[in-house]
Amino acid sequence: MAPKLKLIYVDAKALAEPLRFLFAYGNYQYEDYRITHEDFRSDKSRFPYNKIPNLEIDGKLVHQSMAMARYFAKQVGLAGDSIEEELLIDTAVDTLADYRHQLITYFYDTNEESRKRKKEQAFQIFLPFYLGRLEQQVKDNNGYLVNGKLTWADIVLAGVQDYVNYMAGYDLLKDYPALKALEQKVLGIPSIKAWVAKRPDTEM
Amino acid sequence: MAPKLKLIYVDAKALAEPLRFLFAYGNYQYEDYRITHEDFRSDKSRFPYNKIPNLEIDGKLVHQSMAMARYFAKQVGLAGDSIEEELLIDTAVDTLADYRHQLITYFYDTNEESRKRKKEQAFQIFLPFYLGRLEQQVKDNNGYLVNGKLTWADIVLAGVQDYVNYMAGYDLLKDYPALKALEQKVLGIPSIKAWVAKRPDTEM
Repeated sequence: MAPKLKLIYVDAKALAEPLRFLFAYGNYQYEDYRITHEDFRSDKSRFPYNKIPNLEIDGKLVHQSMAMARYFAKQVGLAGDSIEEELLIDTAVDTLADYRHQLITYFYDTNEESRKRKKEQAFQIFLPFYLGRLEQQVKDNNGYLVNGKLTWADIVLAGVQDYVNYMAGYDLLKDYPALKALEQKVLGIPSIKAWVAKRPDTEM
Repeated sequence: MAPKLKLIYVDAKALAEPLRFLFAYGNYQYEDYRITHEDFRSDKSRFPYNKIPNLEIDGKLVHQSMAMARYFAKQVGLAGDSIEEELLIDTAVDTLADYRHQLITYFYDTNEESRKRKKEQAFQIFLPFYLGRLEQQVKDNNGYLVNGKLTWADIVLAGVQDYVNYMAGYDLLKDYPALKALEQKVLGIPSIKAWVAKRPDTEM
């Protein structure tokens, strides 16, 4: 019997959306449970390491969004066909995390002065660097991040891009045609397209 | 034939040491190539995404230390026996990265004021929190991070602890007996013990 799945997150795409894409892709039934920020903050200690997103798998709580995404990617056949390919996919996923982190570290900084400094660094140095390199990587891999075929690294890229764009304040991929095409290719997968069409409309 | 391996990093344990532990554990032959910081900074663009550690596997460069560690962990039998166990290991590894990151974000901040603020947050909030939770996790798992048996998550914990302690300025595990015992257990594995006894003496 398929395990009972309950995804727990705030009412946002953000770090949970790659998982939701994978659930759509694999046609998984799950409860998409959304709590308010207030509810999350009121008792974080319910969650392993006080972190969300969380997933209840048959009542057992797990966390770490990328570890969970890898777990489901294995189940739906998007995690690579050899340990060499898995290495390249994991590397791409960690590089996407580095890229995302450049925005997160600026966006959530509460100190005005250091926030301004980080924003400059992110927009002038890190984002052009990462986007340029990722663009080249996708060109070198026939339109995908790894080995010219769809993997969960591509799902992560497309799944978190709305969140990354929200933090940036504009569509970061607009001047990167290979990355843009890859994002659109993922968003065009019928099961994912159907999810995106019906998902709750959220700010990020 | 075994692939030709060349690990490229600065003259430090830091993020490369878990890989060196795995190489020792699996009795891999590799070139432990150490460049100066000046050499690294003079032309970072030699490396994928300007990052080290890097590994040449039969001449092909790969990066991302945790992705590489997972790849070799699979080869030496420390990556879990089921996708459920792999999920728990990956989650522990990402949690260790979060814990480490609390120190990295303070330690490398060049702004005096924000560095001070981050240091306070790290030492007063994040480190006690993570170390307390990790201590409990090890107690709950019979002396290991996952399922009461040695996995590459334990190798990562013990491998980067010197680096983490260096940034903290003292042995962070000294008041956490289960974590300390786990670190010592890993350091007591004969192949790893032999490597630690002969490795270059470095600051971090």
